Amino acid sequence: MDLSHIYFCTPPLHIISSREKYSGMSDTEPISDERYERCLAQLENMGGKSVQSMLGNIYDLSPDLAKITVEFPYGEIISRPGLDLRSRQIATVAALTALGTAPVQLRAHIDMALAVGCTEEEIKEVIIQMAVYAGFPAALNGMAAAQEVFSAREKRGV
Amino acid sequence: MDLSHIYFCTPPLHIISSREKYSGMSDTEPISDERYERCLAQLENMGGKSVQSMLGNIYDLSPDLAKITVEFPYGEIISRPGLDLRSRQIATVAALTALGTAPVQLRAHIDMALAVGCTEEEIKEVIIQMAVYAGFPAALNGMAAAQEVFSAREKRGV
Amino acid sequence: MDLSHIYFCTPPLHIISSREKYSGMSDTEPISDERYERCLAQLENMGGKSVQSMLGNIYDLSPDLAKITVEFPYGEIISRPGLDLRSRQIATVAALTALGTAPVQLRAHIDMALAVGCTEEEIKEVIIQMAVYAGFPAALNGMAAAQEVFSAREKRGV
Amino acid sequence: MDLSHIYFCTPPLHIISSREKYSGMSDTEPISDERYERCLAQLENMGGKSVQSMLGNIYDLSPDLAKITVEFPYGEIISRPGLDLRSRQIATVAALTALGTAPVQLRAHIDMALAVGCTEEEIKEVIIQMAVYAGFPAALNGMAAAQEVFSAREKRGV
Amino acid sequence: MDLSHIYFCTPPLHIISSREKYSGMSDTEPISDERYERCLAQLENMGGKSVQSMLGNIYDLSPDLAKITVEFPYGEIISRPGLDLRSRQIATVAALTALGTAPVQLRAHIDMALAVGCTEEEIKEVIIQMAVYAGFPAALNGMAAAQEVFSAREKRGV
Amino acid sequence: MDLSHIYFCTPPLHIISSREKYSGMSDTEPISDERYERCLAQLENMGGKSVQSMLGNIYDLSPDLAKITVEFPYGEIISRPGLDLRSRQIATVAALTALGTAPVQLRAHIDMALAVGCTEEEIKEVIIQMAVYAGFPAALNGMAAAQEVFSAREKRGV
Repeated sequence: MDLSHIYFCTPPLHIISSREKYSGMSDTEPISDERYERCLAQLENMGGKSVQSMLGNIYDLSPDLAKITVEFPYGEIISRPGLDLRSRQIATVAALTALGTAPVQLRAHIDMALAVGCTEEEIKEVIIQMAVYAGFPAALNGMAAAQEVFSAREKRGV
Repeated sequence: MDLSHIYFCTPPLHIISSREKYSGMSDTEPISDERYERCLAQLENMGGKSVQSMLGNIYDLSPDLAKITVEFPYGEIISRPGLDLRSRQIATVAALTALGTAPVQLRAHIDMALAVGCTEEEIKEVIIQMAVYAGFPAALNGMAAAQEVFSAREKRGV
Repeated sequence: MDLSHIYFCTPPLHIISSREKYSGMSDTEPISDERYERCLAQLENMGGKSVQSMLGNIYDLSPDLAKITVEFPYGEIISRPGLDLRSRQIATVAALTALGTAPVQLRAHIDMALAVGCTEEEIKEVIIQMAVYAGFPAALNGMAAAQEVFSAREKRGV
Repeated sequence: MDLSHIYFCTPPLHIISSREKYSGMSDTEPISDERYERCLAQLENMGGKSVQSMLGNIYDLSPDLAKITVEFPYGEIISRPGLDLRSRQIATVAALTALGTAPVQLRAHIDMALAVGCTEEEIKEVIIQMAVYAGFPAALNGMAAAQEVFSAREKRGV
Repeated sequence: MDLSHIYFCTPPLHIISSREKYSGMSDTEPISDERYERCLAQLENMGGKSVQSMLGNIYDLSPDLAKITVEFPYGEIISRPGLDLRSRQIATVAALTALGTAPVQLRAHIDMALAVGCTEEEIKEVIIQMAVYAGFPAALNGMAAAQEVFSAREKRGV
Repeated sequence: MDLSHIYFCTPPLHIISSREKYSGMSDTEPISDERYERCLAQLENMGGKSVQSMLGNIYDLSPDLAKITVEFPYGEIISRPGLDLRSRQIATVAALTALGTAPVQLRAHIDMALAVGCTEEEIKEVIIQMAVYAGFPAALNGMAAAQEVFSAREKRGV
């Protein structure tokens, strides 16, 4: 899958006054529901079902946080030039494995890493390496997360 | 100092295409140096010298990170309605004391907490309370940070 | 140096009483079961069922830890003057969201925050703000915790 | 500088053998499956079922990580002279309780601590003490982990 | 629900006395300055100069936190029977090495560990072991802390 | 159960050789000083002065930890096939930036990342991205570390 021609969100994006945008008290929500849905669909294309369900759950309680999450990390950071998407996912899988506090997000990013071209072997290497920098429990828990993602993908026939 | 009438950054704001904005490769930087300076000046009004120097150092190496930091946390999050600035600073002082990994930022936010109306006594209470949730070393190090900020302010005659 | 005959401080310090208090080997337990129950009941009034069940489970295995938890964090720290209870709960919700290692306690304190006067909106703002200081996964997991608490309260008709 | 032709250390270092050892591509695996099984059996003798099942699950996805985990932490570190096994397990239970990110491994090591001679009382004291250094939520969660281990052992009739 | 008139628990709980104890506004401070000094002196006997200076600095800004620190961790927790002081210090050195956020307190506790009978060799083993559970950087930084303590003791002629 | 006569695994396991290897009490040290020096020199070639000085300091106090650090992370993990060195350094820079507890090691690995072919731009992108997963303070402190490394390299004329 060639992803080199896209970043994350395509123009004509977005953002007017941050106060209007997120307040929930404003008449005009600059990040419209339609745009959010479009952005989310792109995210799903890259990262599979796990991202969609994670953000979908959050959206029910806090549409603002869901929108900010789509817009800032994915719209503004991951889409920056200067580093390829495969390296970005390696960085994220490494960080979340090391931190050990975000298993849901770790699984989502292992899924995304595979979607942007990492092999299962490479992901396992990143996780094993974290034994060095964050300890064996972090690596073992990271590997358990990978196992869930790989199994789920196999069931989905990806 | 009455801050109730402002949030953080005032219109006419900002942001066009995130890809153009931060790439450093685009001709038009939607967050102009002039706007950044203005935003930074407002930050300084609220938080004292520590924020200015922290971001100033970062700007030399990575203008993008400095701009994103001014724009996202301060422009989009802290400026949201729904929670008063004093409560926001209490939340941040609590979190940074508990995490224990960001002493420079903790000092900057203790400074900002005082600037938006917290008393020294209240800040000390927040820090003592963190002994419960993150352990005594976190609280002791947080108190040492507070001590540096209070002393520096005394020297500056604030 | 042979230290086997002492623990930490020798009489006539107050430590003797604290040793008696928690040891479970002493005839006079300064924090009596009756007082513990009374304190716990008050805690429940403020924080709902989650605190009661959390401490109740612990009590079965370690009455000492349950008693210390009621006595130190709640009896000695949260009850200190110098900071209002609403600000204290904001500080705790912020810290536990940022740390990301204590989901049970985070839910208990979101419950308590509502009990002492925070609105759901304010709690969501504190959690969103943690995206800045501890990353988006921390904020997303914090929001998921809030969602559980809000739902549970709705079912209880609070 | 082109580094693509090397990995890290070039011959005649022992690293060549380590590369053979874990690569899964080498004909001679210095840590044979038979040795791994034998080592794992000894581990089980000391730490009960929890270690076996934890490593067994990992082995399916990443035999390399399972082997490294048996070989490095257990084969090279825990087996070092200079500190008795009981003290080593106290250190590990303390660290994992404080970190709060590895509940599975914490339970496994509470099990191992009991297997090498710690009493339940001592383990509870280590966990209570972590309230001081990592906060009450860490201690409460550690105690909940202990409770699961003690119950499971009772059911197994240990 | 108006909670502004209460703090946490209302009389006739012991909390009233704890509020008097630490508030700094009460006439009778249950932990008197004289008792604090005596307790601190004992602490110093066991742990060397590092504890004294750490708490002394804190006392200037927040006598309450200094007193609570002497009273709760040292007076109520470390002094509990059920675990020997040597094991308690091993647990603390392990936890602080693993957390990596409290270098001052880690050095103080390495000092205390030596004071209650641990050998330098044993402390080094605890720290090396943390490479397994918290990663090599944690162990390397812990060893650097040990080096400072051992050198300082040599200079003091301990 | 008396376990005092055993360490972990009994012969004829490879652990005996590992015990000899690191104990400092054995006549035959499988990782000889000469090999260590050679390995360290190669490390220096790849990562610059920072690694050498970091391990050199540790070697004085604990030759064992210095040797294990050269042998396990560098000899056994980083040298594994399955992931290129550039990706490995990106993973490590990401993890250490996110953890925020190992500034010395972060600087060493930024240096090594440059040595194996990462550009300064790419490293800055990895660090900026960590704002998303570990918060802005982590990213700001990571950037400050990068700044020190880049400056030091400029002075060294690299």
